[in-house]
Amino acid sequence: MVIDRLFQEVKEKGNVCLGLDTAPAYIPIDFLKGFSSEAEAVFNFNKKIIDATYDVVGCYKVQIAYYEALGLEGLAAYKNTLIYIREKKSLIIADIKRGDIADTAKMYAKAHFTGDFESDFITLNPYMGMDSIDPYLPYLDNEEKGLFILMRTSNKGAEDIEYIQDKNGLHVYDIVGEKIQSIGSKFIGKNKYSSLGAVVGCTHQEEAVQIREKLSNTFFLIPGYGAQGGGGKEVALYLKNGNGGVVNSSRGILLAYKKVIQGEKKFDVCAREEVLRMRKDIFDACSI
Amino acid sequence: MVIDRLFQEVKEKGNVCLGLDTAPAYIPIDFLKGFSSEAEAVFNFNKKIIDATYDVVGCYKVQIAYYEALGLEGLAAYKNTLIYIREKKSLIIADIKRGDIADTAKMYAKAHFTGDFESDFITLNPYMGMDSIDPYLPYLDNEEKGLFILMRTSNKGAEDIEYIQDKNGLHVYDIVGEKIQSIGSKFIGKNKYSSLGAVVGCTHQEEAVQIREKLSNTFFLIPGYGAQGGGGKEVALYLKNGNGGVVNSSRGILLAYKKVIQGEKKFDVCAREEVLRMRKDIFDACSI
Repeated sequence: MVIDRLFQEVKEKGNVCLGLDTAPAYIPIDFLKGFSSEAEAVFNFNKKIIDATYDVVGCYKVQIAYYEALGLEGLAAYKNTLIYIREKKSLIIADIKRGDIADTAKMYAKAHFTGDFESDFITLNPYMGMDSIDPYLPYLDNEEKGLFILMRTSNKGAEDIEYIQDKNGLHVYDIVGEKIQSIGSKFIGKNKYSSLGAVVGCTHQEEAVQIREKLSNTFFLIPGYGAQGGGGKEVALYLKNGNGGVVNSSRGILLAYKKVIQGEKKFDVCAREEVLRMRKDIFDACSI
Repeated sequence: MVIDRLFQEVKEKGNVCLGLDTAPAYIPIDFLKGFSSEAEAVFNFNKKIIDATYDVVGCYKVQIAYYEALGLEGLAAYKNTLIYIREKKSLIIADIKRGDIADTAKMYAKAHFTGDFESDFITLNPYMGMDSIDPYLPYLDNEEKGLFILMRTSNKGAEDIEYIQDKNGLHVYDIVGEKIQSIGSKFIGKNKYSSLGAVVGCTHQEEAVQIREKLSNTFFLIPGYGAQGGGGKEVALYLKNGNGGVVNSSRGILLAYKKVIQGEKKFDVCAREEVLRMRKDIFDACSI
């Protein structure tokens, strides 16, 4: 089960999930100038970031939208980034948030669990229902792959649908959570977590303890650290003994160099320092 | 407003939205053999289908999952297919069902409304809320682009989330529909329809009349014809005087050649005949 590998990586290297949401605008201008295309600069920027961090992050999350925005060249940079992460023996969450059914879902599974865009985990959107998840499940059983299903996010608009309450007072996200926990029970690894995980934003502290208890076997992908407001204290509520989830930060790490005096430190050195700071912030909060 | 162009196309050429969900397995073996890669065969198959149908379809819907499944080469075939449709002056719905927020959504908008993968309309998934739609809206105002938001689909799993009822008895899909109609009111064209449309499956006849009335300015993308069960009669309930929606069929058209004796007719001829049959089926049902 791939979830055992992720559990082990988190145990050894910490909870940081480094988000490679690399926009050309994030790249230092001098570095960017050295390449003939934005896509090439993006890949080489990613390489430097990966080299500087692969021994201190639990995994990488690659947000495909940033690469799609650069067209075919961007998707070549996406492919090369995935290959480079795999060469470092690190795990990849492809943040694709696809959601479709039947043969179309099978095609997405093929696209992102095999071939040019192969990754270890992908994120999915459950709006169309659980038959939009089923076509991916054979890969969990047989191919060492995993999923993170959108459950409750930390954006303002989450209230529009995710927070709708049914007649019994259950939120849409509660219902999605129950289904993730229940379907996920078929894909549980040695460490008691399932390869079918959930995306849970780290705001809304009041619900965190409850969610962590209810979804006892569910591993969390937690966005919302730093740029979106949550800190170590909020995140810790979603973890169990410091494991059971990875915490994403993208711009907080990629743009850490902007906080130091220009030229004083390289962007990759700053990225590593921010990963170490964040890792300690979470570790300390879990130890209280 | 791009919706006026779509309205006009439907008026002149009919309601059929031809779905280019082209899997290599759908291509006649003799044709497939003529190309050095599956992706090249897919593009050339699409070309033949487009040549045979562009004067009798309202638009094309290209399902990106089928192209992603073939990796970078597949996405080159996707790009070339979009360019070819545009050369024929037909309209494209890119069926991408993306759903994300903030800068990520901006990246998806850039990816699919400009550059290599430019299309006229894209489909979106609203699970994360209406702030996952906002970043696309400037393109509706300024760039002659349109959206179809997933509202209610015709798969079995639709019951899992879309059919959840809130305390007032409103389904999730009702709430999504209201938001589409309300936000869409800012993007209404000369023909009283909005460039912000909805994806509504054509099963569930009992609700069709109600949905068509409530969402009076909303143009529909209607899947579920043929392969998924609905016919002209069901579809007609979602149309107004034969307009106000396009009806997708993919395999029903692409695989029409399989219904005739092998070699008797070419796949493109069969596709055109199926489009004409389907167009008449819908036209007749709307005329009753």
